[in-house]
Amino acid sequence: MFSLTPVLVAVVCILIAWIFKNADGNMERRKGETRARTKAQPWVDEDLKDSSDLHPVEEDADDWQDSEESVEHIPFSHTRYPEKEMVKRSQEFYELLNKRRSVRFISNEQVPMEVIDNVIKAAGTAPSGAHTEPWTFVVVKDLDVKHKIREIIEEEEEINYLKRMGRQWVTDLKKLRTNWIKEYLDTAPVLILIFKQVHGFAANGKRKVHYYNEISVSISCGILLAALQVCVLPTLPRRQTQYSMAKQ
Amino acid sequence: MFSLTPVLVAVVCILIAWIFKNADGNMERRKGETRARTKAQPWVDEDLKDSSDLHPVEEDADDWQDSEESVEHIPFSHTRYPEKEMVKRSQEFYELLNKRRSVRFISNEQVPMEVIDNVIKAAGTAPSGAHTEPWTFVVVKDLDVKHKIREIIEEEEEINYLKRMGRQWVTDLKKLRTNWIKEYLDTAPVLILIFKQVHGFAANGKRKVHYYNEISVSISCGILLAALQVCVLPTLPRRQTQYSMAKQ
Repeated sequence: MFSLTPVLVAVVCILIAWIFKNADGNMERRKGETRARTKAQPWVDEDLKDSSDLHPVEEDADDWQDSEESVEHIPFSHTRYPEKEMVKRSQEFYELLNKRRSVRFISNEQVPMEVIDNVIKAAGTAPSGAHTEPWTFVVVKDLDVKHKIREIIEEEEEINYLKRMGRQWVTDLKKLRTNWIKEYLDTAPVLILIFKQVHGFAANGKRKVHYYNEISVSISCGILLAALQVCVLPTLPRRQTQYSMAKQ
Repeated sequence: MFSLTPVLVAVVCILIAWIFKNADGNMERRKGETRARTKAQPWVDEDLKDSSDLHPVEEDADDWQDSEESVEHIPFSHTRYPEKEMVKRSQEFYELLNKRRSVRFISNEQVPMEVIDNVIKAAGTAPSGAHTEPWTFVVVKDLDVKHKIREIIEEEEEINYLKRMGRQWVTDLKKLRTNWIKEYLDTAPVLILIFKQVHGFAANGKRKVHYYNEISVSISCGILLAALQVCVLPTLPRRQTQYSMAKQ
């Protein structure tokens, strides 16, 4: 009944190519807080290149030089809890996270926008290849836009199901209700769409490949899920509406 | 001085193809707690296929049928904090996460293995494509093995640096010490290596592609980073050893 799972599940990971410049004006755009940028460590393994780097762009050394000015040094220091406390905290965090589920039935209850802002800001603290922060978070509340998104996703999913699954499989799935119909995309009060930026732009306007963009965005997505789960009360006062779901 | 950052940074994301069966016996193997498995939702977008799916394997519908038995229903219910508390918790979590940095100077101080276990278990709660949990976490403490890992990584990194960077760039980097030398791989008391399983095996021994394995493993990695950061004391009692690092 009172469940944050709506938002949690509504994290629709549409990891598609995204050029920030061409962002759709209809959608509210939020980006993880941009931190001091430095191109200090373009870490490149050819082996680890993203599949998304479909359009590799020539780069010359000059493109990187402009980054020199933007390198910023910030003193770093922190400490850690006593061992006993560390163990306790890590244990509690695991137990809390272990209560997360990928559900398909979602409450329409509103969530304060401040919470949405904070979890996206948390996600924006993720490390990324050469600190390119190649992610764009889009928060959708508009009913029509949500519905259009649902239509696009269902269309794609239907193809997947019909193309890949045999008749037996589809029959088996019926009782689990995991088909291509995604009603929850209409129901959830908020959708958080996550886009990866396959490339950015250098100061001179040239395209710059964002290495490891898929890995970076997915790490950020993991932190987003953790942040959402932190807002959930792990101990239940009593039996509430129960959803029978395959543990997933 | 007292910093958990060692472990945090020592999360060496070597996302390479990994066949679990062939795991190196020299390394201590730990896998995120395996939860009830169900192949309930093979969610497949051809567009989103991992780059790692280099060796697509034919699958027939029969392969999936054995999963029917393993579907397990677990009642799901949870609640959430009052709005004010949710906002507060999300804010605090963001502030804690925002203190994480990708540093290259690492303390050799030991960390309780229980903490390592818990953060890996937390990472193992990540969602994954069709709940394949395509990750393997390897914890390395042995000095020789750590050093061998360092050698392999440095060799790869040196090629990257020399091949990609111009002379000017390499010069600029010197002061930041972000070159291919990774001393911290020897220094850190614990390395957590993260491998992705590109495929698994069906009951009949046939290979089964793990869709979205790179995305799934990276999400898991994001949760691992969050779990590690949770063990860090965010408020500093006083000035301690300070590292001047580019914010990254």
